Amino acid sequence: MDKLPHIVIIGAGFGGMETARRLSKAPVRVTLIDRHNYHLFQPLLYQVAIAGLSPEQIAYPIRSIFRRQRNFTFLMDEVTGIEPESRCVTTRHERIEYDYLVLSAGGQTNFYGIRSVEEHALQVKNIVSAVATRNHLLRMFEQASREPDPALRRKLLTFVIVGGGPTGVETAGALAELIRLVLTKDFPTLNLDETRVLLLEANGEIMRAFPESLRKATRDSLHRKHVEVRFGAVVEDYDGQIVRLKSGESIPTLTLIWAAGMRATSLADHLGTKQDGLGRVHVEPTLQAPGHPEIYVIGDGAFVDDEEGPLPMLATVAIQQARAAANNIRRALKGLEAQPFKYRDPGLLATIGRNEAVAHIWGLSFHGFLAWVIWLGLHIVRIIGFRNRLVVLINWAWEYFFYDRAVRLITSD
Amino acid sequence: MDKLPHIVIIGAGFGGMETARRLSKAPVRVTLIDRHNYHLFQPLLYQVAIAGLSPEQIAYPIRSIFRRQRNFTFLMDEVTGIEPESRCVTTRHERIEYDYLVLSAGGQTNFYGIRSVEEHALQVKNIVSAVATRNHLLRMFEQASREPDPALRRKLLTFVIVGGGPTGVETAGALAELIRLVLTKDFPTLNLDETRVLLLEANGEIMRAFPESLRKATRDSLHRKHVEVRFGAVVEDYDGQIVRLKSGESIPTLTLIWAAGMRATSLADHLGTKQDGLGRVHVEPTLQAPGHPEIYVIGDGAFVDDEEGPLPMLATVAIQQARAAANNIRRALKGLEAQPFKYRDPGLLATIGRNEAVAHIWGLSFHGFLAWVIWLGLHIVRIIGFRNRLVVLINWAWEYFFYDRAVRLITSD
Repeated sequence: MDKLPHIVIIGAGFGGMETARRLSKAPVRVTLIDRHNYHLFQPLLYQVAIAGLSPEQIAYPIRSIFRRQRNFTFLMDEVTGIEPESRCVTTRHERIEYDYLVLSAGGQTNFYGIRSVEEHALQVKNIVSAVATRNHLLRMFEQASREPDPALRRKLLTFVIVGGGPTGVETAGALAELIRLVLTKDFPTLNLDETRVLLLEANGEIMRAFPESLRKATRDSLHRKHVEVRFGAVVEDYDGQIVRLKSGESIPTLTLIWAAGMRATSLADHLGTKQDGLGRVHVEPTLQAPGHPEIYVIGDGAFVDDEEGPLPMLATVAIQQARAAANNIRRALKGLEAQPFKYRDPGLLATIGRNEAVAHIWGLSFHGFLAWVIWLGLHIVRIIGFRNRLVVLINWAWEYFFYDRAVRLITSD
Repeated sequence: MDKLPHIVIIGAGFGGMETARRLSKAPVRVTLIDRHNYHLFQPLLYQVAIAGLSPEQIAYPIRSIFRRQRNFTFLMDEVTGIEPESRCVTTRHERIEYDYLVLSAGGQTNFYGIRSVEEHALQVKNIVSAVATRNHLLRMFEQASREPDPALRRKLLTFVIVGGGPTGVETAGALAELIRLVLTKDFPTLNLDETRVLLLEANGEIMRAFPESLRKATRDSLHRKHVEVRFGAVVEDYDGQIVRLKSGESIPTLTLIWAAGMRATSLADHLGTKQDGLGRVHVEPTLQAPGHPEIYVIGDGAFVDDEEGPLPMLATVAIQQARAAANNIRRALKGLEAQPFKYRDPGLLATIGRNEAVAHIWGLSFHGFLAWVIWLGLHIVRIIGFRNRLVVLINWAWEYFFYDRAVRLITSD
């Protein structure tokens, strides 16, 4: 057993999990390393931030998932370095040799160097930050409910979301619904006119990956939900009290949720190969790191230039790359050449709220109730674990029929 | 409306919630103050600590519960003082006048002055401490799984629970099951002989409120689960590494869960009336504070000497006292005299694990499967909210049939 080739996978996101699964029957030892002991279903994390789901419903213990995979070992640890020359990964506690390395360490929030934002903004990046965002949002309403000064109350009830991609749009739509459908009932003295949800987009368009008909549907839908969408709104500074835009405008608010972009984690830097502006490794068409055929880089950390431009940082990309990397490793074990990766676009889906989603799948663009039902179905199916699926379904059905949100708890001090 | 008598209730535990509910139709204004925006179903909190339930399943937003009660206002704030002479409550943010005050601020952990324990022990007292305990327990197993030194591994896998009351017994039983039924599958390399669960009781008996036949059943059941129960084991010191007992014995462990006792919160001190050794107010038989007929003290903070001795700090006591206090306030509004409180003992129930509970109800003592089913049923019924009941039921059914625990997540850094 110890003589079998050792595959080390860094990161238990969509890419890492799929790679480990795809190697389950290969004659190898697989070690998956992650800082957390769970796999997180990131596409629904914004629902934790808006009090719709609890973190436990979208996270699943890694050891549980791989309980039956004999060639699998999980290591909960933080990777501190990669030494490609000696084929070693160093963690906070040990040094691990590999024969093949799959780097699927994901991405981190890109603050574009704006330190004040990094310091004061909320994020929806992991369980801790999503729960912190939920606690903060609910606390703003509790504070506003006992605040006599109207100017201060408006500041407490102004919510700024930065970034017009799917995360920003979904969060803005869901937050607007949380306020109008749920919190107005919780806070009967609340004056809706004092609450504002702003979505700031630096460029001229939101949801750029979608066709124009769906972008328009998204804008219309956000408008109906009273989300103020601002284009060309570039954030320059945020001190926790006032957002300052490049245009000179300033918006007093205690809440800035930053969803303006991602970059690769710094682990990719250890490979010493060419990276793009977001820190992503320029991999070979086979997903191998240049000069290191035993290292595969997949997911948010890999820069792959498709015919239609660089592949986006999406779960579907990471999963397809994982399959390709696992396949190439299995081929290498048999002495076969690595095959180039080809991305098949499965389409795009995003939800803007109750009964409303936009879909660009199977060559079709549509929006509204049908897109929303497809979004619901796909997300329920993709959540790991039957029990999690069931409780998420119950939560969503409850929300839908009773205009309620399950997790309106402030769980920090 | 503003002319109506103002009832201020401090604390949204079982006592405070029941008081507010019982005043729903009275011609009064009710203000409930709590630091948290949720009511916590404390009897199941230990299940959060052993990764069986998520906090969201046993907590419920207060504003949601009282949404239809017209005379009710919730204030999320921390009470900092009570001024009985001027009939005022001060919080961190305001000063609130009352006509009647119901002090139901609950209890806090009693460390009996052992500072080192207070500093290093884990607790199962509120959401934050229960989740911290869960994270810690799971982290011990992750660390042990990569620890080559057998002595260090044993230290990581020794779990000490202090206190032979229901909380300590339930936690010890549930932890032993978590290890034997679940974690051994998660950690296939784990040697069960290296894990120890110890339950330390300072006196000669566990579950003292129960009759001897049930105490014996409890001891036998813990024995079958490999929980080592120690009597006369008095903790003197714990530095986070070694528990030192009065007997001179020392136990190397990184885990000490303190469930050895409760005392009243310090808010009772503001009344300036006689208190017992646990800080509880010696109330009149009517539950009024001596010299202050407009102040009621109920629940863990009240000392009531029944025929069979002082009433224990239990949810059932707090709920019955809440009804009595609300009733006396309604009587006072009509110019009637306050009536003395009489506790009707509804019996005792505690679970030791799968298929096993002890019950002393309806004048009968019994244990085993039937007691366990009654325990399950009663707890499901008492959880607030249909959705919460449903998801807890699903979780428990899942655990029962698949020998699994839902929430094995380490959610801190």
